[in-house]
Amino acid sequence: MRYKVVCAYDGNNYAGFQSQKNALAIQDVIEDVLYQIFREKIRIVMSSRTDAGVHAKGQVFHFDSDQEKDLYKLKYSFNSLLPKDIHVIDIKKVSDKFHARFSVKKKTYEYLINTGEYDVFLNGYAYQCFYKLDLDLMKKGAKLFEGIHDFSSFNTSSLKEYPNQVRNIYEFKITKRKDLIKITVTSTGFLRNMVRIMVGTLIDLGRGLKTLDDISNMLEKPQKNTRRFNADPNGLYLKRIFY
Amino acid sequence: MRYKVVCAYDGNNYAGFQSQKNALAIQDVIEDVLYQIFREKIRIVMSSRTDAGVHAKGQVFHFDSDQEKDLYKLKYSFNSLLPKDIHVIDIKKVSDKFHARFSVKKKTYEYLINTGEYDVFLNGYAYQCFYKLDLDLMKKGAKLFEGIHDFSSFNTSSLKEYPNQVRNIYEFKITKRKDLIKITVTSTGFLRNMVRIMVGTLIDLGRGLKTLDDISNMLEKPQKNTRRFNADPNGLYLKRIFY
Repeated sequence: MRYKVVCAYDGNNYAGFQSQKNALAIQDVIEDVLYQIFREKIRIVMSSRTDAGVHAKGQVFHFDSDQEKDLYKLKYSFNSLLPKDIHVIDIKKVSDKFHARFSVKKKTYEYLINTGEYDVFLNGYAYQCFYKLDLDLMKKGAKLFEGIHDFSSFNTSSLKEYPNQVRNIYEFKITKRKDLIKITVTSTGFLRNMVRIMVGTLIDLGRGLKTLDDISNMLEKPQKNTRRFNADPNGLYLKRIFY
Repeated sequence: MRYKVVCAYDGNNYAGFQSQKNALAIQDVIEDVLYQIFREKIRIVMSSRTDAGVHAKGQVFHFDSDQEKDLYKLKYSFNSLLPKDIHVIDIKKVSDKFHARFSVKKKTYEYLINTGEYDVFLNGYAYQCFYKLDLDLMKKGAKLFEGIHDFSSFNTSSLKEYPNQVRNIYEFKITKRKDLIKITVTSTGFLRNMVRIMVGTLIDLGRGLKTLDDISNMLEKPQKNTRRFNADPNGLYLKRIFY
């Protein structure tokens, strides 16, 4: 029996999604709760690692168990046992062919930038930018990322680990409401820190530290040792995973 | 020299605005920071006490000092020394006739109710309602509160302390965006827990536990011992104070 779970979390109190030594990860909390419900040791398979401080509105993982549970009750048990900053939104039974990571068609991330007065209610939930940003220029820069490119200049995954750093960005959208800039990126997949580095590059562009030509060059002549601004994790949200 | 300060805070980590024994209040933090800046013991005079867990987007206080400070630098010092959940938005020099509490013309509070799926990002920032609410009925109920009434049924201030419990509500507005209900109330003044009890009563109305007649009766025949639902402090925001 394979279960597919969609969940949301506030990443502020965790060392990222994936289990690691010496720090509490969201995976640990979820597997703890699974043990309490199923009384067996269950490992989950996540769709995306998210870094420390990164949030999710629609992270997906799957897990297997021989025990067949009522889905409504299972969701209820999950949310009764999870802390208030992790929440299960949906659980489905899926075929064994479904894989949380390998079956992904595309993913959407969101990034929030507050360009106005510091806001206590966005503390931990948006990047606070004290510089004036040229939004129109940033929108033009965002368009450069769309399509199929080698993103080697825009991530921290090693070429050894990920020899193919070509990805297809379907959409890279920037909108603004009052002082809050919302960036939405949808792609076949993302390399490590890719969204944050692309956003950081657009912030540099908007501040006048980089030009559109710089971004074009970084895309056309990819290199791993470019100076890059990795925007704050707290502004980043894993929004949705498409299968 | 009298200084008028507008500030915002996330109330989750504090025992309310006003100093008290055995718990950290926002006033304590602010007076600590004032001591660091002015090197003299300064007491602030606040416009509104807010309860533990209640937030503010525009709380106002004043304080006096013989030291004349540059306002831009003073704001900067304040925000460098304050924790991330308290923020000074504006500082002005005002005449000695200005009083943060006594000069108030009207105040606006906001209250947020999430009626959808539990949202980790609203945890601590909205009341999570799992019941179906009749929004149209609640809007009718809200209208009953508008105008001049004796609000004795809708607060926990004693008649001894506040013999006159008549207040004038200028506007009581309910809007909804997606699953989030926003309630905005503007009045000459509010008694203790008055917004939370009015909101709680409207939630009871929306759930079918109370009728419009019940509210009319509570307004026309005020009494202090009515059964009242004091809605969660985390949903409440002191939005703005008018002078």
